[in-house]
Amino acid sequence: MAEPTSTTTRLEAFSDGVIAIAITLLILEVKIPHVRAGDLASALGDQWPSYLAYVLTFVVIGIMWMNHHRLFELIGRTDRGLLFVNLFMLMGIAFLPFPTALLADYVGDGGANAHVAAAVYSATMTVIGLTFLGIWLYLDRHRELLAPGVDAAVIAGSIRRTLPGPCLYGASIALAFVSAEACLVVYALLAAYFAVNWLPDWIVRKDPAAD
Amino acid sequence: MAEPTSTTTRLEAFSDGVIAIAITLLILEVKIPHVRAGDLASALGDQWPSYLAYVLTFVVIGIMWMNHHRLFELIGRTDRGLLFVNLFMLMGIAFLPFPTALLADYVGDGGANAHVAAAVYSATMTVIGLTFLGIWLYLDRHRELLAPGVDAAVIAGSIRRTLPGPCLYGASIALAFVSAEACLVVYALLAAYFAVNWLPDWIVRKDPAAD
Amino acid sequence: MAEPTSTTTRLEAFSDGVIAIAITLLILEVKIPHVRAGDLASALGDQWPSYLAYVLTFVVIGIMWMNHHRLFELIGRTDRGLLFVNLFMLMGIAFLPFPTALLADYVGDGGANAHVAAAVYSATMTVIGLTFLGIWLYLDRHRELLAPGVDAAVIAGSIRRTLPGPCLYGASIALAFVSAEACLVVYALLAAYFAVNWLPDWIVRKDPAAD
Amino acid sequence: MAEPTSTTTRLEAFSDGVIAIAITLLILEVKIPHVRAGDLASALGDQWPSYLAYVLTFVVIGIMWMNHHRLFELIGRTDRGLLFVNLFMLMGIAFLPFPTALLADYVGDGGANAHVAAAVYSATMTVIGLTFLGIWLYLDRHRELLAPGVDAAVIAGSIRRTLPGPCLYGASIALAFVSAEACLVVYALLAAYFAVNWLPDWIVRKDPAAD
Repeated sequence: MAEPTSTTTRLEAFSDGVIAIAITLLILEVKIPHVRAGDLASALGDQWPSYLAYVLTFVVIGIMWMNHHRLFELIGRTDRGLLFVNLFMLMGIAFLPFPTALLADYVGDGGANAHVAAAVYSATMTVIGLTFLGIWLYLDRHRELLAPGVDAAVIAGSIRRTLPGPCLYGASIALAFVSAEACLVVYALLAAYFAVNWLPDWIVRKDPAAD
Repeated sequence: MAEPTSTTTRLEAFSDGVIAIAITLLILEVKIPHVRAGDLASALGDQWPSYLAYVLTFVVIGIMWMNHHRLFELIGRTDRGLLFVNLFMLMGIAFLPFPTALLADYVGDGGANAHVAAAVYSATMTVIGLTFLGIWLYLDRHRELLAPGVDAAVIAGSIRRTLPGPCLYGASIALAFVSAEACLVVYALLAAYFAVNWLPDWIVRKDPAAD
Repeated sequence: MAEPTSTTTRLEAFSDGVIAIAITLLILEVKIPHVRAGDLASALGDQWPSYLAYVLTFVVIGIMWMNHHRLFELIGRTDRGLLFVNLFMLMGIAFLPFPTALLADYVGDGGANAHVAAAVYSATMTVIGLTFLGIWLYLDRHRELLAPGVDAAVIAGSIRRTLPGPCLYGASIALAFVSAEACLVVYALLAAYFAVNWLPDWIVRKDPAAD
Repeated sequence: MAEPTSTTTRLEAFSDGVIAIAITLLILEVKIPHVRAGDLASALGDQWPSYLAYVLTFVVIGIMWMNHHRLFELIGRTDRGLLFVNLFMLMGIAFLPFPTALLADYVGDGGANAHVAAAVYSATMTVIGLTFLGIWLYLDRHRELLAPGVDAAVIAGSIRRTLPGPCLYGASIALAFVSAEACLVVYALLAAYFAVNWLPDWIVRKDPAAD
């Protein structure tokens, strides 16, 4: 039991690094318009989907970081399997600048391209949701990795609250072919859901420490 | 009370990461000129707004990091609200490479585009200033998050010293439409103001520890 | 003996930073297609080598991070030589976005360019493999740098397990000129080998701590 | 005296972050050639200055990180002045991807552009050298910031060993207008000098701890 914490610490630092870089790279996808004298204001206005996509994905990744943060407060040690599930989660998060830029470039066009761009964004979010679910399912089968005081009820509750992610993001892949704009609304609602929802277990974890 | 410090530690590490990446990405906006034999020196000279914008925003973000650093020395623990106000602040800082590149590309042109570029820079700085103010106002309402020994006077003083930021940056949005060059002077003066001004609370914090 | 650990800590943090940035920059090489109405789906489909290269190199760098992580659990302190061997290893890992983008752009073309791109990827991996081997050989000659409880058998076993890397990646340089696709299979198999293979020493290290 | 170390820790982490990002961004300046079937090998060969510039600057920044690392082992606490001198040093290091790309693009051309590119690289290195010297001079005047056991002799020795940097890099600005290739040799020799030269103080620092 002695010092496997060090393992978790460095894994958290590496994950924080990847998430912090992915969130900060988003701005590179907001392009500087090159226009003639007097046209900058309207050119910047035409780029509204870029700003919207930046804000949306920034908040989404920020919430993922918070969830990841809470998650690892429940974990006492890691093993190879957990490292790999976490790596796949990071691969999904680090991929997000790509569908974000797709959305920014094509959602304003309407038509088939807007539908495809939204579907790619939805699919990426579905995969990331599945990796979060995968971490919880992995922990459910490897309870020896949990921090002291974390019990089966915490895991069951977490799985229950994580499940809507991949399901609803998955459903939004189909929705994308109906309306890309509707997908944006779904993304915002799901971000709000996860922003509100990650709190409960946090409290569970902090209660014993507060005594 | 026991170990909520760990929460603050990882939040600081994540914030440091985002700020360090944003400050280092600035160089990507300084473009390599592609010119014919013998023309490099003058092409590099023509890019002076790029170097100026790099230096200005590098110092601005550096001072924000110092302020953020001092701020979190006053905070003992975090909650969800604080995580979100902090996330919005990071969203503003991570956005800065965009208005910096706009300024670099258009301030030398004069005319309407230079005014618009300066206004976008001013607006971004106003928003960031509001998020700093927001953190202090949030802490004022949630004093249980403060570190031991930090009292209401520290918060009140911080709010008073933070307030000129959003006000003056906000006023510079209007100034931008009069003179983009005047805005650059305002940015430099405000950077100097915040560079000098973040010290007092730092000392307040360090005094008790030094005893 | 007292606190040379601090040295290792900061070296690990720096290495983690470089590896985390390199892995996250990979997404910048997946380009946004600029196409006319209705053509996005097929344009995205044509980019399959980009996604494949992203996933391959992300997993490869992820496994390198795990190996680096395990490696430094065996090291108690550093000296100048170790800092330099580690720096050369980081130089190789940070170079990977370049051959990854080459592979993504040219492997689908077939012909001579595909062979050259695969050869460059193989050569980069060979060099990185040699730097990992170099670290183990360096530690073998400077056993005073090892953590307490790590003996010659651990080092010998690590060298034995690291050796296939540079040898087989080196052989894949020749294979690249026969078939770029066959190289992709070799890369995947070697990634799987190193994913499975880094475990043993980890356990060796953890056993004493678990007592 | 109690815990000002925490200040140093976060400053080191921020500096490490900026340096790690700057070193890893270098690869973005090595461009993927877009060529017709069969031309990739020769196009990659023509890019040799890019690889040389990558390796040179990677090693240069790596050695700067080592020097920064050693430097902060001698520092017990920070104040506002030190934060600013350090910020200017980071501004110089984070600027390096720009002159590195200039050198890569123009050193192979010969002629006036090669001379200008080398002069810009030399000038950047001169400025960075001055900031390192500035940190030592600042510490010489603020010895209360030094770690326990670090005396005036250590500072004097460090200033003496740091001085050749800005002087010789400064001289290489003039040399650049004679021969860009000669500058490359000077850069390599100075890198070797600083690689060898940072050791002495390190040992000074470690001796007492080893007792």
